[in-house]
Amino acid sequence: SALQLPQPCGRQGDGHVTHLNINRCHMIFGLFSNMAGRSQQLATSCHATKPGMLNVHLVPHTHDDVGWLKTVDQYYYGDRNDIQHAGVQYILDSVVDQLLKNQDRRFIYVEMAFFYRWWKSQSSSVQQTVKQLVNEGRLEFVNGGWCMSDEAATHYSAVIDQMTIGLRFLNETFGAFGRPRVTWHIDPFGHAREHASMFAQMGFDGFFFGRLDYQDRARRMRNKEQELLWRASDSLTPPMADLFTGILPNGYNPPEGFCWDQLCSDPPIRDDPDLEDYNVDDVVGCFLVIANSQSTVYKTNHIIMTMGSDFQYENANLWYKNLDKLIHYVNARQANGNKVNVLYSTPSCYLQELHRANLTWPLKTDDFFPYADDAHDFWTGYFTSRPALKRYERISNSNLQTCNQLEVFGEKAMAVAQHHDAVSGTEKQHVANDYARKLANGWQHCRVLQASQLNAHAAFLSLVFLSVIQFSVNVYNPLARPVTWPVRLPVNGTAYSVSDASGKAVDCQFLQVTFDPETGLISIELPNDVLLKRPRYNASAGNNVESRQPSGAYIFRPNSSTPFIISRTAKTEIIKTSVVQEVRQWFAPWVSQVVRLYADSRALELEWTVGPVPIDDSLGKEVITRLDTSIKTSEYFYTDSNGREVLQRKKDFWPTWNLKQSEPIAGNYYPINSRAYIKDDVDQLTVVTDRSQGGGSIQNGSLEIMLHHRLLHYDFRGVGEPLNEISGIFPDGLVVRGRLLLTLDPLPTAADMHRPLAEGMVLQPLLTFTAGDLKPNTQLEFSGLLAALPPAVHLLTLSQWDEDSVLLRLEHQYQSSESKVSSQAVTVNLQKLFSTLEVLGVAELNLSANQWKDEMKRFDWTPEKGTGHQCCVS
Amino acid sequence: SALQLPQPCGRQGDGHVTHLNINRCHMIFGLFSNMAGRSQQLATSCHATKPGMLNVHLVPHTHDDVGWLKTVDQYYYGDRNDIQHAGVQYILDSVVDQLLKNQDRRFIYVEMAFFYRWWKSQSSSVQQTVKQLVNEGRLEFVNGGWCMSDEAATHYSAVIDQMTIGLRFLNETFGAFGRPRVTWHIDPFGHAREHASMFAQMGFDGFFFGRLDYQDRARRMRNKEQELLWRASDSLTPPMADLFTGILPNGYNPPEGFCWDQLCSDPPIRDDPDLEDYNVDDVVGCFLVIANSQSTVYKTNHIIMTMGSDFQYENANLWYKNLDKLIHYVNARQANGNKVNVLYSTPSCYLQELHRANLTWPLKTDDFFPYADDAHDFWTGYFTSRPALKRYERISNSNLQTCNQLEVFGEKAMAVAQHHDAVSGTEKQHVANDYARKLANGWQHCRVLQASQLNAHAAFLSLVFLSVIQFSVNVYNPLARPVTWPVRLPVNGTAYSVSDASGKAVDCQFLQVTFDPETGLISIELPNDVLLKRPRYNASAGNNVESRQPSGAYIFRPNSSTPFIISRTAKTEIIKTSVVQEVRQWFAPWVSQVVRLYADSRALELEWTVGPVPIDDSLGKEVITRLDTSIKTSEYFYTDSNGREVLQRKKDFWPTWNLKQSEPIAGNYYPINSRAYIKDDVDQLTVVTDRSQGGGSIQNGSLEIMLHHRLLHYDFRGVGEPLNEISGIFPDGLVVRGRLLLTLDPLPTAADMHRPLAEGMVLQPLLTFTAGDLKPNTQLEFSGLLAALPPAVHLLTLSQWDEDSVLLRLEHQYQSSESKVSSQAVTVNLQKLFSTLEVLGVAELNLSANQWKDEMKRFDWTPEKGTGHQCCVS
Repeated sequence: SALQLPQPCGRQGDGHVTHLNINRCHMIFGLFSNMAGRSQQLATSCHATKPGMLNVHLVPHTHDDVGWLKTVDQYYYGDRNDIQHAGVQYILDSVVDQLLKNQDRRFIYVEMAFFYRWWKSQSSSVQQTVKQLVNEGRLEFVNGGWCMSDEAATHYSAVIDQMTIGLRFLNETFGAFGRPRVTWHIDPFGHAREHASMFAQMGFDGFFFGRLDYQDRARRMRNKEQELLWRASDSLTPPMADLFTGILPNGYNPPEGFCWDQLCSDPPIRDDPDLEDYNVDDVVGCFLVIANSQSTVYKTNHIIMTMGSDFQYENANLWYKNLDKLIHYVNARQANGNKVNVLYSTPSCYLQELHRANLTWPLKTDDFFPYADDAHDFWTGYFTSRPALKRYERISNSNLQTCNQLEVFGEKAMAVAQHHDAVSGTEKQHVANDYARKLANGWQHCRVLQASQLNAHAAFLSLVFLSVIQFSVNVYNPLARPVTWPVRLPVNGTAYSVSDASGKAVDCQFLQVTFDPETGLISIELPNDVLLKRPRYNASAGNNVESRQPSGAYIFRPNSSTPFIISRTAKTEIIKTSVVQEVRQWFAPWVSQVVRLYADSRALELEWTVGPVPIDDSLGKEVITRLDTSIKTSEYFYTDSNGREVLQRKKDFWPTWNLKQSEPIAGNYYPINSRAYIKDDVDQLTVVTDRSQGGGSIQNGSLEIMLHHRLLHYDFRGVGEPLNEISGIFPDGLVVRGRLLLTLDPLPTAADMHRPLAEGMVLQPLLTFTAGDLKPNTQLEFSGLLAALPPAVHLLTLSQWDEDSVLLRLEHQYQSSESKVSSQAVTVNLQKLFSTLEVLGVAELNLSANQWKDEMKRFDWTPEKGTGHQCCVS
Repeated sequence: SALQLPQPCGRQGDGHVTHLNINRCHMIFGLFSNMAGRSQQLATSCHATKPGMLNVHLVPHTHDDVGWLKTVDQYYYGDRNDIQHAGVQYILDSVVDQLLKNQDRRFIYVEMAFFYRWWKSQSSSVQQTVKQLVNEGRLEFVNGGWCMSDEAATHYSAVIDQMTIGLRFLNETFGAFGRPRVTWHIDPFGHAREHASMFAQMGFDGFFFGRLDYQDRARRMRNKEQELLWRASDSLTPPMADLFTGILPNGYNPPEGFCWDQLCSDPPIRDDPDLEDYNVDDVVGCFLVIANSQSTVYKTNHIIMTMGSDFQYENANLWYKNLDKLIHYVNARQANGNKVNVLYSTPSCYLQELHRANLTWPLKTDDFFPYADDAHDFWTGYFTSRPALKRYERISNSNLQTCNQLEVFGEKAMAVAQHHDAVSGTEKQHVANDYARKLANGWQHCRVLQASQLNAHAAFLSLVFLSVIQFSVNVYNPLARPVTWPVRLPVNGTAYSVSDASGKAVDCQFLQVTFDPETGLISIELPNDVLLKRPRYNASAGNNVESRQPSGAYIFRPNSSTPFIISRTAKTEIIKTSVVQEVRQWFAPWVSQVVRLYADSRALELEWTVGPVPIDDSLGKEVITRLDTSIKTSEYFYTDSNGREVLQRKKDFWPTWNLKQSEPIAGNYYPINSRAYIKDDVDQLTVVTDRSQGGGSIQNGSLEIMLHHRLLHYDFRGVGEPLNEISGIFPDGLVVRGRLLLTLDPLPTAADMHRPLAEGMVLQPLLTFTAGDLKPNTQLEFSGLLAALPPAVHLLTLSQWDEDSVLLRLEHQYQSSESKVSSQAVTVNLQKLFSTLEVLGVAELNLSANQWKDEMKRFDWTPEKGTGHQCCVS
């Protein structure tokens, strides 16, 4: 049964406040968990294996996208089965029934967004039964986050949050037995190193995935390197960010011929010997061939087979009835000397056997981007797909963190949007709309809370044009240090007096447009000779010469490697005020940009507007911005991993294997979640993005980012519609607006510039408005902190956990050697941190807050000597 | 729990043999059953209804074709789900699980071919659970035959057998609680009166079906005549063949929008009020509209809804979870004064409420052929579809009866072939092949048994050409009277001496072909001026003017109402011997016929050969034979019903309603199972067929029969392939051969001619061969009967039931007034019937042998006065 959780503040401190030493990339927190007993349970709940035989671990599983072709609700209820047959409520009903029919059977479940909803609609007797199944290891949770997050388009802050929500639910519902030991990213389209680092810090023992570059897989199969040790951080001391990683043999599908779900058509086992169709010998023979073949590309005498796929097990009887027979008939051959042993298993049980094998494993220090499943099939388009949704997700996260700092709410909408078919942009249009709606609902809750917490009037304004005579603006800064932030408001008056909280007048400017048209590309007072271009690629529609692959929501495949310049001239306006210098440029009716330099800023802001992308030539288009500089990059450039650590990239090159490049543009694109930079020995040009995008450096000194794409073909990866965003507001095609911040710095201080710049871009001030006079004695200024945190320390999470405790995550936001000053360790005195909270005690937890840090015991793994590529960022 | 069955011979007689009075169309038998307790159980197992409300009986059900798009085995196991998703083993697994989850739930099951196979693979604990469900009325069997038999193409003998097998299994497994009270023919394409008569004599209380002519349905809806009393025999005294008949509201499907199977896409009930997608009010509102609308076309305050369809309930949870909610939320409206009450129910429970209503019901005495579901969509093609399989089925029945007379075996293959997608010819080609294979397996068993029972040598010949020097032929006559039967053997010698059992020489003739070519249609010494023609229709491929409906496996739709004469001349040979006169005619390379008149016969034999039907003009073709006579038919003609009673037909006319004819040929076609005739005041021309075929009388004095058709289009009724039979033996298209027996008689004695003729055609002598010398003292003659039965009495069944008892069915084979002599009642002394059996006692049973005749208590129903059309055959 579930274990009782201790009181959080009794754990450590007992009223004495700890001074925390915040090391590089290291996070700390207050909360609790209790995981005693889980390791004993593993040893007893796993089926015995046979040492002298090939042990085949059959892992029954379902992959339940938290939205893709259907919305989350449609998937849960099994609505709109005309789009895709899938109903998660029935999957869980059925699996529980079938697990009860034979205690040998096993199942794993991943997505708490669905499980939570199902759980709360069960009777207490069903809940009790499920707890029993979990305690006995017959139902095992893996991953355990709210969803299976995308790895290319997500920000680490949101990933940690969504994992925390799911794992907290498991901990509170099932106690120690519910804690996942394995993380399971079977479907995401490429794998980020920061994800591996986070999973290690969350206490996971191993990581399994299904998709990697086809050339990489072929090589790893030859070398038996499909199981490896991933050292996922340059900054954390091993094994802190080491994660055992297993590449699954068939993606996440069963071997060919052995799919027994209702969604499949493979022949069932017909074991009535009276029948003409009796096929047991055929099935067993075929299975043995497959198992023996698979064993030649893995290291141990254990292999894993994923027996399930998308939304399978809705009628689990079909799977289990045939798996029962398969196990029975294959193992019956042992009596004749056959050396294959098949068993129901789970990833944890399989991992335990790998660990017991006590081998050494190849070490990997880079990441798994980009992902190509064939020579012309690079999944790099989705880095940019649905740019409006990607921004909405990012700004929602900023708002959520603000709200969290006031009260815990609205989390779930954010968590759902981390799914690998959500923020990735690879869902159907109607599903994207549903995600946006869910995020908007979260905002609505947040606004009401802000209004009440910030002591505002009942009347609450979020008007497009502010037309009231007098109003006040609340500005909430979620960062743990002061920021300077230009507040831009649309007003319809022509003269306003603006004062701050202390009543002092504020320097401000109104929309006094001066027309000053020019011709040609403008080069204003830039810090250096950066040439801004706004070209586009025409999307391939597929051809029969090299490949039929067209560009789509997932796949980027331009029909030429030379981009088309949209216009060599631009219509231009220039505005100069005491606050800002602004150049407005129109390259075409559907491409414009505003270049801004604020008086107190060293960063240049590029506000780009793209759309509706014209399609009257029947060609889809990928629109990029390209910065051509004189920086001598030697074909290197740098991109962040999930907004946190930065990885080195090199054109047409993978650090760990010999790449044969087949797509000169798409094959050199990488995810950019928060920043990318190019540099030489002197200068570094960093671009900070306001959302996840894709980009690359195709030529020396050049950095390009894809801003928007509109495509007319479907790219054959399941979504079944072209990425051609049209809505009621944008009947001619979506118009997207965004910002890039450019900063050109001397190399030694570049990180000191881009880290706070990106921090401020991710968590930005939230404005709320109150009409009319303020009540007398309204508090006009408030700070939750007694003082700013040191520059190296980012306030990642401040969130009410329960009545008596708060979840706090403080993060060292600099990589080990990127800043001479800021990369140093710092100490924070928590007692002197908060203005209104009294800190009675602190207990340190793992990153996902579901385990005491000092109880986090992970499997130890030994890397092979001489493997691993040290990926230096300095 | 199941009841103990008494010893059969203890029931009645006790050693005293009963003289049985065999009345018209009345059958008697020996065996046993015990049905005590079933009526009490009904009263308690049905959910209570509410008198002042509209009670909606929801009947969860699955319709499991015993072969159609897949073979029986494929359907059972869920193999080849790429053809059609269907796996009956899983349906039964799932339904049993789900019935246990909520004791309010109900389910009905129909096809014992599947249920029996599932049952025998269950553990005893599951079997015990299922018995409990049956005893409590939560799982109810309806129909209960081995399959749901086709009604147009089946012979009553085989239907009775297949019902007997299924019902016997139910009786022996579940006792009284397993006896179906309702028969359920929801899918067959038109309904035969003889089926209703048989069902009445089997003790069923009611009959439900789904398909009837679209004009007839519209009329019955208007008049609330969808529930009626069917008086199904002219010969049996009412209510002996009266059967309450209900026409289901949606075929056998749920109302639109309420299909919650995994095969459907209707929205599930989303009752989480937190959701945007919450739809309970919509669903309840829509359901109430449908229920109230349906109640306007039925008589009582009870209506039935069939909640299921083809192969549904494979994952019964989907259905039941939503039905539970539907019932809950609809009935919750009663608190607000709503007058609709929804309940789980079964056809028996529904029927009980109709009976309690104590109303009068419209009387019907004709049948439900032909079936049209739209103006140009007459399902009359399947009367002839797959003529080779239809013959194979018929001859297999003959063999089976022979085998039964020796031992019980091989029944099941015959039973399966009665299914409405088997002998009907509307299955896919590969399924037809599987049926044929199953029948062949049955033959193989039978041959071995014959060899042993007939005391033959081990060497057993079934060669195409008999090439041994000496062989003996065993001829087994399964009729209960002597027959004269020409034995035709293919031999490759030129001179044989033939002797009978007593050693006397037999007059015989060898294949001494004399060529005597002639030109033109031949008119040999026929009893009258019957003109034989062999025309064809060209099949419609559908057109956009009247209807897109093409001819297919189900639908007959010629593209012109005037048939094309294949040839006005014929190449001819004539052979005359002392045994037979034979004229061989070739109308075309693919159409020929042999006209034979045996010396001792008054019937003319037409042996027709058709195929490969040419399709080089890209037109499908329906090949008919047409007899044009001078008989003054006044547009009347007559066809049998399932080979037994004969019904009057009239061109463009239905006896009970005002037909608007839209297809002058196809709309006048009727099933011919054994015979059709035309007559006037003087003469009657009867054609006896060797298989089920379709035919009509389009012009006065004319009778046409469709022999074969080959079609190039699919007729949109689900089978998904055109009926274009090609095989390894017939790569250019199937060649079919068959026989018609023609007899022209004075009207008063016509039945005395055609009844024995048809009896001999259905049960024909079986030949077996033994090579070489016979062993000394081999018994050369054997008769199971002491003497021939009277002409009116047909030995329908003689079959070993168990070690001590035999199932005997004696049938009066004349209709009430068709023969002055033979229609009279006769008495048979069973004691003096058998040569080798001593009759110790006889107990009379219902027709299906699962109930004591004197315990067969059926609901009594009162017909409305003035309804019913007396269909006279005399």
